[in-house]
Amino acid sequence: MNEGTVTTHPLPLQLRSDGTLRHLLTLEGLNRRQIEQLLQRAQAFVRPLGATPPATRDLEGVTVANLFTEPSTRTRVSFELAAKRLGASVVNLEVQLSSRVKGESMLNTIYTLESLHVDVMVIRDAEAGIPGLVADHVKPHVSVLSAGEAHVSHPTQGLLDALTILQRKPDLSKLAVAIVGDVRHSRVARSAYDALTRLGIGELRIVAPPVFMPEAGEMPGCARHTTLAKGLKDVDVIMMLRIQKERMSQASLPDADRYFAKYGLTPDRLQLARPDAIVMHPQPMNRGIEIASDVADGPQSVIRDQVRNGVAVRMAVLAEVIANRGSLPPA
Amino acid sequence: MNEGTVTTHPLPLQLRSDGTLRHLLTLEGLNRRQIEQLLQRAQAFVRPLGATPPATRDLEGVTVANLFTEPSTRTRVSFELAAKRLGASVVNLEVQLSSRVKGESMLNTIYTLESLHVDVMVIRDAEAGIPGLVADHVKPHVSVLSAGEAHVSHPTQGLLDALTILQRKPDLSKLAVAIVGDVRHSRVARSAYDALTRLGIGELRIVAPPVFMPEAGEMPGCARHTTLAKGLKDVDVIMMLRIQKERMSQASLPDADRYFAKYGLTPDRLQLARPDAIVMHPQPMNRGIEIASDVADGPQSVIRDQVRNGVAVRMAVLAEVIANRGSLPPA
Amino acid sequence: MNEGTVTTHPLPLQLRSDGTLRHLLTLEGLNRRQIEQLLQRAQAFVRPLGATPPATRDLEGVTVANLFTEPSTRTRVSFELAAKRLGASVVNLEVQLSSRVKGESMLNTIYTLESLHVDVMVIRDAEAGIPGLVADHVKPHVSVLSAGEAHVSHPTQGLLDALTILQRKPDLSKLAVAIVGDVRHSRVARSAYDALTRLGIGELRIVAPPVFMPEAGEMPGCARHTTLAKGLKDVDVIMMLRIQKERMSQASLPDADRYFAKYGLTPDRLQLARPDAIVMHPQPMNRGIEIASDVADGPQSVIRDQVRNGVAVRMAVLAEVIANRGSLPPA
Repeated sequence: MNEGTVTTHPLPLQLRSDGTLRHLLTLEGLNRRQIEQLLQRAQAFVRPLGATPPATRDLEGVTVANLFTEPSTRTRVSFELAAKRLGASVVNLEVQLSSRVKGESMLNTIYTLESLHVDVMVIRDAEAGIPGLVADHVKPHVSVLSAGEAHVSHPTQGLLDALTILQRKPDLSKLAVAIVGDVRHSRVARSAYDALTRLGIGELRIVAPPVFMPEAGEMPGCARHTTLAKGLKDVDVIMMLRIQKERMSQASLPDADRYFAKYGLTPDRLQLARPDAIVMHPQPMNRGIEIASDVADGPQSVIRDQVRNGVAVRMAVLAEVIANRGSLPPA
Repeated sequence: MNEGTVTTHPLPLQLRSDGTLRHLLTLEGLNRRQIEQLLQRAQAFVRPLGATPPATRDLEGVTVANLFTEPSTRTRVSFELAAKRLGASVVNLEVQLSSRVKGESMLNTIYTLESLHVDVMVIRDAEAGIPGLVADHVKPHVSVLSAGEAHVSHPTQGLLDALTILQRKPDLSKLAVAIVGDVRHSRVARSAYDALTRLGIGELRIVAPPVFMPEAGEMPGCARHTTLAKGLKDVDVIMMLRIQKERMSQASLPDADRYFAKYGLTPDRLQLARPDAIVMHPQPMNRGIEIASDVADGPQSVIRDQVRNGVAVRMAVLAEVIANRGSLPPA
Repeated sequence: MNEGTVTTHPLPLQLRSDGTLRHLLTLEGLNRRQIEQLLQRAQAFVRPLGATPPATRDLEGVTVANLFTEPSTRTRVSFELAAKRLGASVVNLEVQLSSRVKGESMLNTIYTLESLHVDVMVIRDAEAGIPGLVADHVKPHVSVLSAGEAHVSHPTQGLLDALTILQRKPDLSKLAVAIVGDVRHSRVARSAYDALTRLGIGELRIVAPPVFMPEAGEMPGCARHTTLAKGLKDVDVIMMLRIQKERMSQASLPDADRYFAKYGLTPDRLQLARPDAIVMHPQPMNRGIEIASDVADGPQSVIRDQVRNGVAVRMAVLAEVIANRGSLPPA
């Protein structure tokens, strides 16, 4: 299946003994049916832009804590709105859970939140293994959701990317998808790989300069290309990745202009793909570095759908882990 | 009307085609009737100190995002409470929308929030033109409210100032109002000017040291005075402005003590005005620089009324823009 | 009773004229019956880990403002959840109320919040006297709750500590309690002293190195020990305190390793106490400095109970001060 992935924690613990979803740390542990059920549940939460968003009481009485190393990210807001629209109480904390942080240990924080009757911990951390470590230590009624784990995994992003593709092109077995850019450091790419391979994608390509290629053993089954000319040829879906500009300063890397000249997605290059190809980006975008604004805002872009689907996916995951845990002793 | 104002964006877009309010970016585009209706709506939300604040479900299912460059301002809290008391969901984001900020473009942020089903974006930004720019780009069901735009405009402050005066002195045509202090850099002064001139104020005076006077063409119709002795003579309303102490360090400016000696509002100087004159300040105050504590907390001060009216005005504006947009497709 | 405490503000104002609780600034002004009633009310809000937390509408229509100098503390989250579970609206502000802070005065902030119809101000400040000063200035319908005042007082912590002991060992008159560590700088120790002495604790000991001993007159009635060997002998309750590592750098103080060697609570030293002794810590813990992880997470630790009881105590205090104020004029 996907043995070469770089996760550093063991993965048994996402499911309850009855097979239902308890944590969402990575998509690796899930099978096709489980992913499809989550996407189906998410689709029911999707509304067109301008429609009233769905509101349920599925999480009434449930407390969700967003634990982000920095609070002002779109993913934090997406989780916060997802939880609120299900009727949960939400608290936001800016915390460093990394084991490197001295003084206040991760476990102290986790046990405290648990004792405050927090039911779901949504965690973004720059250190690999943190969400799994937390999941290993919380009580059975608590669920841990990764909101992005180092370069390793970003499971709700993988789900929303899959949902976005399915909405436009329902038969994945016939599709060619190109993931383009800094694949090596990308949790988005890894979770997209996990989701799409499990869902039976026809063809998955990696398109990257050599320094951004993943390790040799990683992402088995993907063709690797170092030019857009070959990589984008006749694909149905182009998934652009964000370039970390701070990596541009390294000697081995071109600067932003030279990167754009070689790997930026321009209207011209978009022509290499199928005429009805869709363009995706996990955001935030570097316009003019990995993608031209004309393409980002153009008719083939589904980037805003991805954001909208992100709330729906997070609602689905929250509803799923809470529905599955059974009823708690009454208040 | 008010042609000399320094706004840098065109202003057609505050109203819907049916003439109802969609955005609130500045008071310039509004006529007397529209302002009076907003104030009437606001008055219905006013409660005395110590009474239970009003609570409605006018914004049930509506999501309001507060986009402030720094989150801990009283205006952010005022908007947050206004929205919550109308039943809205509120998310706070600390963001820099300014076009100068690299990496994450303003439009990315706006489109993302739109896709998260945010209905109202409340924006404070230090760069002129940002709220208008956002309003130009959002979908028809989204409203943009300025919570303070550079030195240009602070429309809800203008409304709450007008409301505060009207509560004490209902016939504006008979009043003389002095705006005192750093008028040149003040969005509060500009929006007060807009509100009061549209409402038919009797007399409006600017009282400032020469370095704090607005440009020659600005605020037409106002008498200009450089001394309190003349400027406050027989006025009914004194609107003090906040002095930016950081500007005090410039060579051309006196230090705080010398400023207070010449332009600080003391009990003695308050005697220059009519005996029943009221004293206003947009806050935060520099006690001992532009205003003496005896005056700020004295019987003629209506500064706390201004704060209370601020929530009511923001509730009115929120209720108005949402009521006007018609019903959305159901959830 | 407790005359030697270092509070710098007078304390008459916690109770209303009818004797009911209005503010909670310190436990000094409360008598045994009042503390017992609060603890009884809190106990009704306690749920086992994994149970649904209680949810009431006792604070419906009430607005609670958390005023913390830094927002990401567990105490802020505990107050926020307590207020939300009672149905209140909560706003979080990061503010410096200290009188030393220039520009924006504390009173400006307080009057503003009052005018925004904030009913309860929860205040944490590093400067002694601030909560009392605020309480002296707010209108009669507003309550002020201290969430930790300098080294002086932390009344909800004192209550939750007492509740935690009572849950395990109901007859306080038979207990020996040791407070261990940096007692000199600890508001936790002072509030525990206040609570336990009022509740008729059998024996209260202070165990600290000489530099961490409180002033001679403070905490009358406590035996003082400078070694764990004597201090922990046969006690029923060990209350460990957090060591401020920044104080470790002073010449007079040992480093962390040497402190742990002498004053750290290890499994071996725990044997000095009674076999059924419980171990407490206000958190955040410095594992390996004042307490060994084996003890912190061991079977005698009730540290997680303290956190859980903290929400219950804060719910009780919030419900109490609001219930007592009588009904406001209707909205």
